[in-house]
Amino acid sequence: MDDLLKQVAFIKEVDKLKYIQRRTKLFNSDRRENDAEHSWHLAMMTLILARHADKPIDVLKVLKMVLIHDVVEIDAGDTFIYDSNKTHTNTQEERLAAKRIFGLLPVEQAQEFLEIWEEFEEGTTSEAKFARTMDRFEPLLQNTSNNGGTWAEFNVDYETVYRKKKVIKEGSASIWAYAENLLNQSVEQGILKKENSSNERG
Amino acid sequence: MDDLLKQVAFIKEVDKLKYIQRRTKLFNSDRRENDAEHSWHLAMMTLILARHADKPIDVLKVLKMVLIHDVVEIDAGDTFIYDSNKTHTNTQEERLAAKRIFGLLPVEQAQEFLEIWEEFEEGTTSEAKFARTMDRFEPLLQNTSNNGGTWAEFNVDYETVYRKKKVIKEGSASIWAYAENLLNQSVEQGILKKENSSNERG
Repeated sequence: MDDLLKQVAFIKEVDKLKYIQRRTKLFNSDRRENDAEHSWHLAMMTLILARHADKPIDVLKVLKMVLIHDVVEIDAGDTFIYDSNKTHTNTQEERLAAKRIFGLLPVEQAQEFLEIWEEFEEGTTSEAKFARTMDRFEPLLQNTSNNGGTWAEFNVDYETVYRKKKVIKEGSASIWAYAENLLNQSVEQGILKKENSSNERG
Repeated sequence: MDDLLKQVAFIKEVDKLKYIQRRTKLFNSDRRENDAEHSWHLAMMTLILARHADKPIDVLKVLKMVLIHDVVEIDAGDTFIYDSNKTHTNTQEERLAAKRIFGLLPVEQAQEFLEIWEEFEEGTTSEAKFARTMDRFEPLLQNTSNNGGTWAEFNVDYETVYRKKKVIKEGSASIWAYAENLLNQSVEQGILKKENSSNERG
């Protein structure tokens, strides 16, 4: 019962993820997505797309990763992937957040979730690579449905987007083939600009 | 690649779950929860609380259930659990919705998800019972954090709530012990009324 009290405290705390706004918007929409919705969508995508993973993956572990990966943003806030001043990976602030929030759980469980979060952040195991493939693929689909979405809004060029999205390739060759094609189409449609495209015209 | 196109169509379609409002509100909040947030929260709860299940459960299967259980509401809308005119279980409208939405997936996957949804709705397997325990437990925690929440707002009495919440017992004796205690406390605090409480005073 003592464990259950701690677990309920954690369950209440993570409710706050529903208030953390991302930059990316819902499909064909002007409404920004929040972290809880985003995490749910990645979990759905994992269930549906797991068969496209290049290496055998433990689907349950990938689900744990995508469900908890943004919990640290309750304390540290959402870091925009195209923000050049701040990287998205495992800052000291996020590490402290992970310790505080997972620390609400019974000790053994806190340790398990901390390790899963670290594994996701490091991105080296098959499960972490596939989870990161999901995390990059969802906003790509959203931005293409929104006339360029955050790429257009924050003037992010093709080369930068391509560099960030290439992470998809590490989890799945077939999803990357689809994603790369979407990026090329986006350039053709003019919703994603190449770096020197204004010079070419000038 | 043909499969991937179908899967992406499904991934885009289920985005609509983020617009389906529930009656229940976030913790200590006036903002109603949407179905995507709710499904994410049940998945988190499943990860954290699985060890309280009375019978061995396949956690991955429970996660599939809670992640998809409300997808049918994209077509059929949210049915309020205390609505006495409409039951929450597997109406013809929901069945058609399941067929249409899961039907966007490749055939074999559509069949798998349809079966998982049916299993959840029937509520007879250990996994379905535990998934339903999660589905009843979250709004109980939310309502107690919101001075009675939907119980107070829609004038639902203790007996009705108790009857609905007893489903929790089928998945976990320890979570039910905690839940039953919360219900009793709610009555003591006056945020949940017994059926004849006004008569007693009169």
